[in-house]
Amino acid sequence: MLLKNPPKISPNLIKQLEAILGKDGVIRRKDELLTYECDGITGYRQRPALVVLPRSTAEIAAVVKLCHDNEIAWVARGAGTGLSGGALPLEEGILIVTARMNQILRVDLDNQRVVVQPGVINNWVTQAVSGAGFYYAPDPSSQIICSIGGNVAENSGGVHCLKYGVTTNHVMGLKIVLPDGSIIDVGGAVPEQPGYDLTGLFVGSEGTLGIATEITLRILKTPESICVLLADFTSIEAAGQAVADIIKSGMIPAGMEIMDNLSINAVEDVVATGCYPRDAESVLLVELDGLGVEVTRNKHRVAEICRQNGARNITTANDAETRLKLWKGRKAAFAAAGKISPNYFVQDGVIPRTQLVYVLQEIKALSEKYGYKIANVFHAGDGNLHPLILYDNKVEGAWEEVEELGGEILKLCVRVGGSLSGEHGIGIDKNCYMPAMFNEIDLETMGYVRDCFNPKGLANPGKLFPTPRSCGEAANAKIQGFAGVDVF
Amino acid sequence: MLLKNPPKISPNLIKQLEAILGKDGVIRRKDELLTYECDGITGYRQRPALVVLPRSTAEIAAVVKLCHDNEIAWVARGAGTGLSGGALPLEEGILIVTARMNQILRVDLDNQRVVVQPGVINNWVTQAVSGAGFYYAPDPSSQIICSIGGNVAENSGGVHCLKYGVTTNHVMGLKIVLPDGSIIDVGGAVPEQPGYDLTGLFVGSEGTLGIATEITLRILKTPESICVLLADFTSIEAAGQAVADIIKSGMIPAGMEIMDNLSINAVEDVVATGCYPRDAESVLLVELDGLGVEVTRNKHRVAEICRQNGARNITTANDAETRLKLWKGRKAAFAAAGKISPNYFVQDGVIPRTQLVYVLQEIKALSEKYGYKIANVFHAGDGNLHPLILYDNKVEGAWEEVEELGGEILKLCVRVGGSLSGEHGIGIDKNCYMPAMFNEIDLETMGYVRDCFNPKGLANPGKLFPTPRSCGEAANAKIQGFAGVDVF
Repeated sequence: MLLKNPPKISPNLIKQLEAILGKDGVIRRKDELLTYECDGITGYRQRPALVVLPRSTAEIAAVVKLCHDNEIAWVARGAGTGLSGGALPLEEGILIVTARMNQILRVDLDNQRVVVQPGVINNWVTQAVSGAGFYYAPDPSSQIICSIGGNVAENSGGVHCLKYGVTTNHVMGLKIVLPDGSIIDVGGAVPEQPGYDLTGLFVGSEGTLGIATEITLRILKTPESICVLLADFTSIEAAGQAVADIIKSGMIPAGMEIMDNLSINAVEDVVATGCYPRDAESVLLVELDGLGVEVTRNKHRVAEICRQNGARNITTANDAETRLKLWKGRKAAFAAAGKISPNYFVQDGVIPRTQLVYVLQEIKALSEKYGYKIANVFHAGDGNLHPLILYDNKVEGAWEEVEELGGEILKLCVRVGGSLSGEHGIGIDKNCYMPAMFNEIDLETMGYVRDCFNPKGLANPGKLFPTPRSCGEAANAKIQGFAGVDVF
Repeated sequence: MLLKNPPKISPNLIKQLEAILGKDGVIRRKDELLTYECDGITGYRQRPALVVLPRSTAEIAAVVKLCHDNEIAWVARGAGTGLSGGALPLEEGILIVTARMNQILRVDLDNQRVVVQPGVINNWVTQAVSGAGFYYAPDPSSQIICSIGGNVAENSGGVHCLKYGVTTNHVMGLKIVLPDGSIIDVGGAVPEQPGYDLTGLFVGSEGTLGIATEITLRILKTPESICVLLADFTSIEAAGQAVADIIKSGMIPAGMEIMDNLSINAVEDVVATGCYPRDAESVLLVELDGLGVEVTRNKHRVAEICRQNGARNITTANDAETRLKLWKGRKAAFAAAGKISPNYFVQDGVIPRTQLVYVLQEIKALSEKYGYKIANVFHAGDGNLHPLILYDNKVEGAWEEVEELGGEILKLCVRVGGSLSGEHGIGIDKNCYMPAMFNEIDLETMGYVRDCFNPKGLANPGKLFPTPRSCGEAANAKIQGFAGVDVF
């Protein structure tokens, strides 16, 4: 809920904040505040009234308590790489930035646990334990800059979530500052915990239930062997069918990614890998990991399935250098889209794997209908699509058409039993679409849950759930055509 | 919360129930009600005022709505195999038994999903899909008689949860009747779902948030190869160390079970497997599954680790018949304890794996201190202990001493950073211990969550959380000595 009349931040309150955080912990200068006006989705911008930079759980609790007592809304922000505007500030609210809470607090290799502060960068966790033969599995594309706190808020995924699951599968416990400033510990070092699974509830709650100030992560043993296969096809449907057949065989690759012809040419234009044939309609990347004997055996099975589905060439990489070369194009795909088109819009939807071929055909039809090119890059194994709609913002009315086209793709995902978001979250970008997936009672129930953690609505108001203010008329328009969802 | 003055069930209400369920759907005769007075833990008995046997979501919703309107408390019951009294009826409440909701509603092999009613027996799911090469992973010992609805309520585990996780990792979505009679759908066919993870919140909530009336389960491909190793040791600590070393190596066996000398001799007395050497201080069972090449490779690694830890004999079983023979003793362990002792009390606690050797030594010391034999049978891989305290109920004061000893073992588990329950749940048996793991704010937060689903407290009152009525003085006594928990 948005506060109707958010109170101004008084000089006295600023003094209290400075007493808690020190003068360098409170940012008030307008030019400095500009840094924080958007996250990774630049379509939404809002300068916060004030930014605070706490260093500890106690400092966060004190700030949040002050907000609670003075009825000031606040938003938590990690590294600001989110893609749904989840960390978009409030005009008269405080932005709590966790950048200075960047300590790895404990490493327990025997129990395969690492405890971190929320500002720790995703990739640092693996760096801290890789020498001992461990790694942290969830790997969003932004992993060298995104924070664990943000990953927890958005329940981030990555290319390996097909086999290893998303963030929620790797968070064992949390220390949380609740919106009234009290502190709770949920979960713990052992996975079996009685009572309600508040850890699971909190992960993916997009900052609406509190702030995680200590996060206990599970780390995994580095696999003995890794192999990447790159196969190219004369149709995108054939690659989609190969993915379905690989899963059907019982294999669970670490990751399976598909790119279409438009993406292939974009990356070859920009990074010139030389590995992605420009005339291919699609390429499929499959990463296998595990024991050497297992990877070798599965490599042959995957290659065989690709061939059965008409793959023209299959390249295999066993050593790290060649693997990186094969991955290079996929990793550069978003950046490359930005080079071949003045602007692009990334959609993030999920579909059941079995609907892959059908949905790709429908996206093609939508692309033709609206007259915008769509580059398809996606986590094919778990049906997480990332269509990139290419457009030029300078053309009047283009953005509105692209937004509508993006909405059509979401409708398609939900219609075949999929989901509004795979890993980018709902934030401010998709909250008006929530009624498409959830009926009134479902949303009401989630609202009750939010209100029992966040009764004053001060924690990240206006995000995740539709509000009359942001979605009134627009929501009705957006959700037309969503009826008749069939889960299977 | 327990209702102070639960209203009586009126003849008019019974008529309304019969109108919803038919005459054969309402059980009122006292002798028939006796069947339902306890679940698998026979220490707690209570005859319900009335039992109802609904056949559909609509019937459950109508019954629950009637209870809501008339402020009558109710308890849901699956097959009644629970081990914490979670389905213990209320003297003046209604027991909703799901036995007639036993239909497998949909099987979708391509997406690896099965939708079942809550009364479906765990093992039926695997039976329904095994012909096509799939199975349902969570396998509590009671799997041939326990219901999926009960598994969801208790978040049940099994011998394979080391590799495959517990029930919550296999439930994709739920249709739930809330305590006010409204119906919500949470989760769905694809794992990525925006909004709060209400599916995860519900699983393990022990009937306090509503009744699941349709459950979407994930099924897995049957592994290509399975192998069981049985190793025997001259100390239990050596078996514990072998388990730690196997995990440390990066292998994740499907299951790892340890039995001590007392259990070995009990099962050999009763089922005479011939495989468990009577003079061994412990046996370790390791089940490996996966590709043939992977299982073969890991079999040698496990055997090597066992030998390094002083294993005397290592038996390997690759075919189904020999595997069953090796498992036979473990599967008979609880029943065998019942044969060698007039009574036994099973404790269910969890410890971090690294504490295994220390905790086993402490349990031995407690056994000597209290003068009761303790047979140790446990899911060693995930640190889930099941000490069986052997006693004779006819000896005056024995039960009280055994309860105290059981409590000491729980204290020990929590003190080393473990948990009050691995898979049997809290129910009425351990609710007074909850303050040992959770502080006041933690429990208060869970209470808020419960109240937003279950505001009148009619759904399974008195379970899971401590109540002043059941735990007043007793709770204080039980939790003494729990302070100073160290999570690592």
